Amino acid sequence: MSEKNGAKIVIIGGVAAGPKAACRVKRLMQDAQVTIIDEDSLISYGGCGIPYYVSGDVSDESELRSTSFHMVRNENFFKDAKGVDALTRTRALSIDRKNKIVLVEHVETGAQQSIAYDKLMLATGSRPFVLPIPGVELDGVFTISNLHKAIEIKKRIAGGKVSRAVVIGGGAIGVEMAEALTDLWGVETTLVEFMPQLLPRIVDFPMAAMLASHLREKGVAVHLGEGAAEIVGEEGKVTAVRTSARTIEADLVIMAAGVRPRSELARDSGLQISPMGAIVVNERMQTSDPFIYAAGDCIEVRHLVSGKKFYAPLGSLANKEGRVVGDNMAGIPSVFKGAVGSFIMKAFDVCIGATGLSLDVALAEGYDADVALTAPSDRAHFFPTVDNVVFQMVFDRRTRRVLGLQGFGPMGDGISARIDAAAALVGTGATIDDFGTLEMAYAPPFSAAIDSINAAAYVADNICDGRLRKIPVISFLLWMEDFSTQPDWIALDIRHLKETGPFVEKFGSERWLAVPYNEVRARYRELSADKTMIILCDAGTRSFEIQSFLDSVGLRNSQVLSGGFNVVRRIGVDWYPE
Amino acid sequence: MSEKNGAKIVIIGGVAAGPKAACRVKRLMQDAQVTIIDEDSLISYGGCGIPYYVSGDVSDESELRSTSFHMVRNENFFKDAKGVDALTRTRALSIDRKNKIVLVEHVETGAQQSIAYDKLMLATGSRPFVLPIPGVELDGVFTISNLHKAIEIKKRIAGGKVSRAVVIGGGAIGVEMAEALTDLWGVETTLVEFMPQLLPRIVDFPMAAMLASHLREKGVAVHLGEGAAEIVGEEGKVTAVRTSARTIEADLVIMAAGVRPRSELARDSGLQISPMGAIVVNERMQTSDPFIYAAGDCIEVRHLVSGKKFYAPLGSLANKEGRVVGDNMAGIPSVFKGAVGSFIMKAFDVCIGATGLSLDVALAEGYDADVALTAPSDRAHFFPTVDNVVFQMVFDRRTRRVLGLQGFGPMGDGISARIDAAAALVGTGATIDDFGTLEMAYAPPFSAAIDSINAAAYVADNICDGRLRKIPVISFLLWMEDFSTQPDWIALDIRHLKETGPFVEKFGSERWLAVPYNEVRARYRELSADKTMIILCDAGTRSFEIQSFLDSVGLRNSQVLSGGFNVVRRIGVDWYPE
Repeated sequence: MSEKNGAKIVIIGGVAAGPKAACRVKRLMQDAQVTIIDEDSLISYGGCGIPYYVSGDVSDESELRSTSFHMVRNENFFKDAKGVDALTRTRALSIDRKNKIVLVEHVETGAQQSIAYDKLMLATGSRPFVLPIPGVELDGVFTISNLHKAIEIKKRIAGGKVSRAVVIGGGAIGVEMAEALTDLWGVETTLVEFMPQLLPRIVDFPMAAMLASHLREKGVAVHLGEGAAEIVGEEGKVTAVRTSARTIEADLVIMAAGVRPRSELARDSGLQISPMGAIVVNERMQTSDPFIYAAGDCIEVRHLVSGKKFYAPLGSLANKEGRVVGDNMAGIPSVFKGAVGSFIMKAFDVCIGATGLSLDVALAEGYDADVALTAPSDRAHFFPTVDNVVFQMVFDRRTRRVLGLQGFGPMGDGISARIDAAAALVGTGATIDDFGTLEMAYAPPFSAAIDSINAAAYVADNICDGRLRKIPVISFLLWMEDFSTQPDWIALDIRHLKETGPFVEKFGSERWLAVPYNEVRARYRELSADKTMIILCDAGTRSFEIQSFLDSVGLRNSQVLSGGFNVVRRIGVDWYPE
Repeated sequence: MSEKNGAKIVIIGGVAAGPKAACRVKRLMQDAQVTIIDEDSLISYGGCGIPYYVSGDVSDESELRSTSFHMVRNENFFKDAKGVDALTRTRALSIDRKNKIVLVEHVETGAQQSIAYDKLMLATGSRPFVLPIPGVELDGVFTISNLHKAIEIKKRIAGGKVSRAVVIGGGAIGVEMAEALTDLWGVETTLVEFMPQLLPRIVDFPMAAMLASHLREKGVAVHLGEGAAEIVGEEGKVTAVRTSARTIEADLVIMAAGVRPRSELARDSGLQISPMGAIVVNERMQTSDPFIYAAGDCIEVRHLVSGKKFYAPLGSLANKEGRVVGDNMAGIPSVFKGAVGSFIMKAFDVCIGATGLSLDVALAEGYDADVALTAPSDRAHFFPTVDNVVFQMVFDRRTRRVLGLQGFGPMGDGISARIDAAAALVGTGATIDDFGTLEMAYAPPFSAAIDSINAAAYVADNICDGRLRKIPVISFLLWMEDFSTQPDWIALDIRHLKETGPFVEKFGSERWLAVPYNEVRARYRELSADKTMIILCDAGTRSFEIQSFLDSVGLRNSQVLSGGFNVVRRIGVDWYPE
């Protein structure tokens, strides 16, 4: 075998999409000369593992660069095992598309070199967004842009140099970093987010509020709706972060305000760039130059629900896209159709996940969107390990199409099971009815006979057909803060009397009626049509049954609190009776 | 509201499908008179929870009959809370379809009564198959046909009357009962299965073999390919079970040899019955009489992969079907399109699941079926809780359609996550390529960047396109038992030298070549084309890479052991070096 005569494949970027494409194309065309170029010395690492490296769950950074069979993925590994040349500490300067040449510079020496290609791939990734505020250059202010930063952060913490940290940004990385700092290192950590909720656009209010409540329980100070206005320092070192509302002392600041595609090289080469700055590719991952492919955090992909392009910088997508690049470079016409934005995150003892569109995004996209918020048991309610979970299904009322699903529950794989099943369907145009009959594998240790995803679809069905009328959780919370906001509301609490008693006592029977679920059919004549009854139970299920009965006896003046107290308790309220 | 004028809905059968339909139709038509008839005194229970009740995980049988909010679902509950009449201890004798009347008998008194209906539902369930062998009538021989039997079994065990048990039947209930007897009660338990593997037709050999090995590790004696020939007794009490190969002493015998639909009432009423004895229904769950519906264990449903009718007696399907019956009785044209046979089961510390068709079934159905057997990490391999899992994807080589997925791994929700996601897709005609890009939610605590389901699809892709040649696990095991079965095979073990060393020492270098994965490119000239090289690694992934390289240098005489040693070790072999 002579590699000399093989196709010349050059790949710029060596973290996720790049190495995946390199190894795939090499397997498919063993006579190809495959070269990865990266300006960093460390390549092919699991960037998503950085918070777990910082926390100490992962003890050594080399684990993030190792295979499952414990080989470190360095230049030698790529050469010996994969037959791929990895040129590290090598920066791509420009692309001569006409002559198919990449000009590179060796970072150590400054020496330049021209590398010819037959097929080129851009896997240039993303860079963290640095807020345009004073103080970002101070010592102790970090972005999570690469493994070196993570190593430096961990070194400072392990060296006892960090006692107070501020994380700017309540997205996934911000929350994960807040957990890493708090949980294992005991760093006094504050998380500030400019938007009024955590994980904006990814999940909706009730889910984000449960997450924020859990973070606070675990000792993270969470300030929402507060942008960082300035990073304050002394003698070049960070000392505090000033927001619109307060100044928070800090000797470490993590800026996790999102990432932006690194597309300068593509732009300078005349390739098509999207309005938000990502490289434009087709389904075969070709840029506007058919000899140049792109994948990973530097591109946009099609959202399989909305049909629009969106930016989804995730390692899991980068790998899938990279494989498609490898295939196409080798002449296999694989396609990457797009993504549904599946998301899952651990936060201390809970996890939160989502797929498809959130309600906020769906409304902004123009859908006639609504939600079914449910709080069912995660497995057979008689099974000892049973717990409550919360799911919110987003759907389009007009077409009955399911647009997304969000889940919140105890740490484990139960939430991702439902998110994954939903992800498989939402991109296909599946309806509420498809989700109602979706066949989740059932045995008592794993699910309820009516799985939580089916149950959410049933609720959506009842809402869609106008059989279930409900109020948003936020409306209920506002009313509980101040009854005068809805003077004609009255709670109809249908839980056990031992549960409802303290509420009646605290709020008075003019605000809080207690009629147990199984007595409503016999006692409905005690109810009147004067006020709007907000029917309350633990999960919302019994409330719907009661609403349906009350409607039939002419008492149509009721609204259900979706998700019931299972959601309210998790959001955390100060009016809850002891 | 007057119920007097409402539609008369009669439902025969009060366990799962019946109560679900009853409550749904009542909610939709509150003025309907809904009556459930059941010959038993206990209704609306979670039959799938019986093994966990017997084991003690569920302490009281009433928990199986309770709601998630701790109300027992008895006659009063149905009346007060649901507005549904439940006539227990009432047997349906016959149906006068012309006059729409059901004749019932009150079991206690023998009194008969005619009950008129506008719409009727048959939810008559199933009965256990009783083997046609001597001794089935002996005291101590049980089927798991209802809650009373379970109560009696547990009473005997708790009373110290059971020290040795035989479970006949290696299906799901048999395995769950074997665990229940062994795990908490310490009963010396033997499981006998007529077929050569556990869970026949549900999973294929490697998965079933791993399960059998785990059961044996946990102290269950498992005898496969051994039918129970006779149940032996003394003075009317069981003392032993005789199989084709041995006699096993026992003071308790559980016969779990499958169930059959209870369709006599339907047959006697002239309704259409399938060749296997199930009631025939359309997608709206109507029998051949449009005023009579049927659902649950007494019907057949369409298999959404094969398109053929099959028998799927599962509580989860019964509930979904029951809801569709309720809808249609109320004039909502819901449909139940069919099922994909999703299955999940706990067995001590592991779980095993499946959806769609197994290889055995797919081949029998005439597909050009093959499998991708994989043994990947269940989450990011650097995450502390990482474990190995095994997935087998069944696909059709001609159409690239995925026909099914099977999974085996540690107890938890990780296997069901993949089975559920696959279940959402297999019924839609999804291909290997759809599974390759299926977007599983990714974060290191939950999955690998390339999720195990994507990885299985990648392997299937490589097999389908002829890039990966493999041998079945069973062929490798037979060769290891007796090298003369394949005299021209030689192992090419590419794991670390510290792993391969003991193998070379034990089996000799003429049978066992050891060349580490990352040295093959440099040392391939040491290999010859004389023999068929069986490439061995832990998961099969590296083996494929090596095969692809060897092919490119003209050494096309290799086969990959799919799933590698991760599978072989779990199956349990006695030749494994210390």
